[in-house]
Amino acid sequence: MSNPIRIGIIGYGNLGRGVESAISQNDDMTLVGIFSRRDPASIDSQTQAYAIDEIMEFKDRVDVMILCGGSATDLPEQGPAFARHFNTVDSYDTHAKIPEYFDKVNAEAVAGGNVSVISTGWDPGLFSLNRLLGQAILPEGTDHTFWGKGVSQGHSDAVRRVPGVKAGVQYTVPSESALARVRAGENPTLTTREKHKRDCFIVAEEGADQAVIKETIVNMPHYFADFDTTVTFISEEELRRDHAAMPHGGHVFRSGRTGESTTQLMEFSIKLGSNPEFTASVLVAYARAAYKYAQEGFTGAKTVLDIPFAYLSPKSSAELRKELL
Amino acid sequence: MSNPIRIGIIGYGNLGRGVESAISQNDDMTLVGIFSRRDPASIDSQTQAYAIDEIMEFKDRVDVMILCGGSATDLPEQGPAFARHFNTVDSYDTHAKIPEYFDKVNAEAVAGGNVSVISTGWDPGLFSLNRLLGQAILPEGTDHTFWGKGVSQGHSDAVRRVPGVKAGVQYTVPSESALARVRAGENPTLTTREKHKRDCFIVAEEGADQAVIKETIVNMPHYFADFDTTVTFISEEELRRDHAAMPHGGHVFRSGRTGESTTQLMEFSIKLGSNPEFTASVLVAYARAAYKYAQEGFTGAKTVLDIPFAYLSPKSSAELRKELL
Repeated sequence: MSNPIRIGIIGYGNLGRGVESAISQNDDMTLVGIFSRRDPASIDSQTQAYAIDEIMEFKDRVDVMILCGGSATDLPEQGPAFARHFNTVDSYDTHAKIPEYFDKVNAEAVAGGNVSVISTGWDPGLFSLNRLLGQAILPEGTDHTFWGKGVSQGHSDAVRRVPGVKAGVQYTVPSESALARVRAGENPTLTTREKHKRDCFIVAEEGADQAVIKETIVNMPHYFADFDTTVTFISEEELRRDHAAMPHGGHVFRSGRTGESTTQLMEFSIKLGSNPEFTASVLVAYARAAYKYAQEGFTGAKTVLDIPFAYLSPKSSAELRKELL
Repeated sequence: MSNPIRIGIIGYGNLGRGVESAISQNDDMTLVGIFSRRDPASIDSQTQAYAIDEIMEFKDRVDVMILCGGSATDLPEQGPAFARHFNTVDSYDTHAKIPEYFDKVNAEAVAGGNVSVISTGWDPGLFSLNRLLGQAILPEGTDHTFWGKGVSQGHSDAVRRVPGVKAGVQYTVPSESALARVRAGENPTLTTREKHKRDCFIVAEEGADQAVIKETIVNMPHYFADFDTTVTFISEEELRRDHAAMPHGGHVFRSGRTGESTTQLMEFSIKLGSNPEFTASVLVAYARAAYKYAQEGFTGAKTVLDIPFAYLSPKSSAELRKELL
């Protein structure tokens, strides 16, 4: 067996911890270090942590850096900057800005002679792949995407800003009846309200009026007014005990017609016990692809749409043909 | 817009008819002709039909030949033979012989300076892709594949060989309770009997003993003895009216664990009104990929595992990044 692929992690939040764990499931990889803006001594990891300022010393010691920062402020800066010096993988997910981000990262990766896989994970990522597959195979058809059941960070932040709310979490939940209609090949036109409902679990401050909190949430424009929303009041202990996990999931459908209006349906679904751990597992598989492209001498940025699945596997194409086709 | 991709069809059964129909849904393609061993005058198609002996006259008039023959006898001969002279796509599905078939087609394609995409469709094909994706992302996990509800040609042939059976059809049906257990993340070990049941619809010959037919079918080794099998006797008219369609489908699951034994589940499912029309639609999308590889100067054989999804689309990578990521 050849030398293991040497991985570095930049940023050690939930996603970085997920990557650390995922690397340990892949025998062809080894984790060299975690790089953080925080004091390395303060980082509680299984892996050696380093200050981000030391990272250039690892240019010849890390094959692929996995960028685990956020899309709002970290990645727009870190993506291009590190692509200049390392092969990188990231989960940049600000959909509207992906073309611009791709161009910036691509320019730096080309200049530095590196490979960067951008915007991987599940959406963008695996869901994008399935939308493309469905559209290519069934050109006469419709996409239907559902998200959840899972925590929406933006909506959870919104409920926590409501006066009288001490803590809380919001789950986006796809409507079972809408899913059933799509699966039946009805190809329905669904309103926002028909596709998803929103379930909020709220810890109220002592003495706060729960009825007022509930009214404020369910009528909040943009966030909740267009949805069927439930508000359940719970204790702080219940919040800690029952709502600490980060489940998520979703469904991508392509509902199409072939021939004399024959119904054809494709569905890709995920049900995740932990969103960050799954996203991390996707990033790690694409780190392998980045490494393979670098070995072949390719330089520049790639997205999941440009990468054959064979590049995600530790096995050779001949082994994959034998075992999986 | 550039010139359309010029497609030829070799073999005009259900699959060939499906390809003819699918080409009409793709604006960037045009169908040049159908090539058959039968007398072209006997072929009832929308498209000009030619005798297979004339095919070499089309070397510069067809960009990609889609091979629509069977895997038992047609493709083992036609695949390598036509790869020498044309870019080709086929649905070769004798799983155990795919590596050998790949090598033969690859050698001819390289010698002729052509591109061949082999063994596409849904299994092998889209199901293979999803098995690879699941294994790469969730290395600690298990695959579960279910087929149906759909007609199994081999099992239908088997029931028709039973004495007293005039005509009949057999559907393979995945067990709903087994699907539910996999979807619940139980990761069950399922016996053959627990995964699928088999439903037979039989037209008995006049005077035949239906009880004997039923006993013979349900106890048939290999084909039915290991399954829960139902046998329903119907009239010839019912067979024609209710069982002429060729539905199929199936499910590929990857049930895995990440971190501290967090359950993660991926599912890819298809529900097909017509198996040959869907398979044809997959072949047509991969014909586009073959064309793109040929334009780039690549020669040799490829499988679905080696081909990025971007190659299946008429859109550019930049358009896809903007619209689908």
